[in-house]
Amino acid sequence: MSSTTSTTSTSAVDTMRAAGAEARARIRAGFDGPTSGMAPGLVQANLISVPYAWAFDVLLFTQRNPKPCPVVDVLEPGQLASALAPGSDIRTDIPGYRIWENGVLTDEVTDATSVWEQHPDLVSFLIGCSFTFENGLTEAGIPIRHQEAGRNVPMYRTSTACRPAGRISGDMVVSMRPIPASQVAEAVRITDRFPAVHGAPIHIGDPSQIGIADLDASDFGDAPVIEDGDIPVFWACGVTPQAAIQASGIPFAITHSPGKMFITDEPEDTYRQ
Amino acid sequence: MSSTTSTTSTSAVDTMRAAGAEARARIRAGFDGPTSGMAPGLVQANLISVPYAWAFDVLLFTQRNPKPCPVVDVLEPGQLASALAPGSDIRTDIPGYRIWENGVLTDEVTDATSVWEQHPDLVSFLIGCSFTFENGLTEAGIPIRHQEAGRNVPMYRTSTACRPAGRISGDMVVSMRPIPASQVAEAVRITDRFPAVHGAPIHIGDPSQIGIADLDASDFGDAPVIEDGDIPVFWACGVTPQAAIQASGIPFAITHSPGKMFITDEPEDTYRQ
Repeated sequence: MSSTTSTTSTSAVDTMRAAGAEARARIRAGFDGPTSGMAPGLVQANLISVPYAWAFDVLLFTQRNPKPCPVVDVLEPGQLASALAPGSDIRTDIPGYRIWENGVLTDEVTDATSVWEQHPDLVSFLIGCSFTFENGLTEAGIPIRHQEAGRNVPMYRTSTACRPAGRISGDMVVSMRPIPASQVAEAVRITDRFPAVHGAPIHIGDPSQIGIADLDASDFGDAPVIEDGDIPVFWACGVTPQAAIQASGIPFAITHSPGKMFITDEPEDTYRQ
Repeated sequence: MSSTTSTTSTSAVDTMRAAGAEARARIRAGFDGPTSGMAPGLVQANLISVPYAWAFDVLLFTQRNPKPCPVVDVLEPGQLASALAPGSDIRTDIPGYRIWENGVLTDEVTDATSVWEQHPDLVSFLIGCSFTFENGLTEAGIPIRHQEAGRNVPMYRTSTACRPAGRISGDMVVSMRPIPASQVAEAVRITDRFPAVHGAPIHIGDPSQIGIADLDASDFGDAPVIEDGDIPVFWACGVTPQAAIQASGIPFAITHSPGKMFITDEPEDTYRQ
């Protein structure tokens, strides 16, 4: 119900939100690639779903590790639509899902409906994704190398231990974007405003200091594209819970596949500080 | 291990922290009054402890209602010392405890050790308390009426519903401080810097708009002392979980008695934004 008196900014937000629903519909219909650059300006989220008996441990783990695990929504058992995306279905609206049993990756699927039916008490945690702030970086003229190359963002395990919670522990995972040296400060400034999608980088420069031996050998996503004069900049990453699933042997879990996110209807500005 | 080269600010923090341990020792030895004004400059906290089976619901409730329920620490089952107060004992270091069964207040004790022994799987949530920022208000020359009168702060149930989580729901509880009209803006500015202890007021002026019929009839704490020219200013309050315990019929819980807080060793500055 739009009217001629509605403001431009409301229309702009409505248009942006419609792009979220469109992106999810496209994914539901079969798109199975990374979501970097899709529906720019909307919050994207990582997923970890666990049985109810593990939900307290996971929620406490995220609370104790807000930099890699900023929770933007929690779906209770039986809930399939996120409050951040009316009409969504958490079982179908992500391009790729990983199925984990006793800490081991056992399957990768594009539709998790049947798996969900076998585990009706799953609690799902949506964790803000750094793809969200790439829009702000682009608008500031900062190149996003993996987007330019049509690749997934490179992600790495680090040697930085997360704070344990209950039965859960593990090391932090980071995403890396090579940024021209003259623009690194601006990239820090822009991303610092978005703590709900990992905020400012956790490390800038020398990868070995956070336990990354070889920048070309990413642990998740694609290999990096690094131009002359770029500095590697590392952000805490919502794949961290997947490292924790492995390290902790959680009996069952579903996650998104790295780089393939849940796209909400929530404008990034909602989370800007 | 102090040395002559240690800085003044480190010494000041050490002294302040020692005041926290002293306050807890005094409470452990029998002090059973309100803690407003004790150990100024240190974070004070509300308590809610529930059996493990209810811990996810409570943690989710606090996360969905960060204004009344800003969690500063979670003690896992069997853990008795808060990470914010080394050497503390959650069972003895609060001046007064309330015992709740099926949503009904059944007892009030000054030492909860024996109750704890009967419920070894309790998970304890420490929630920031607005007593923490009273120090900043005092330093800015803003009078704290309840302190001046030697009374407990007045607290009220409101008609503002919290966002439910799992089996838990309830209305928000607020604390009220009458502030001279000319100083209300400054009180907002000061407290807004401390989101971990409830932050800025949720309401200023007319109590009826948030469902408070009679300002003199506080639901918790003492009756207010209001001077001519004062405006009632309302902050979200960590007693909110107690209203939720009642509304939700949680089978068992231990809380602090309103106004009688857990004093940490953590300087308020740690949480200043």
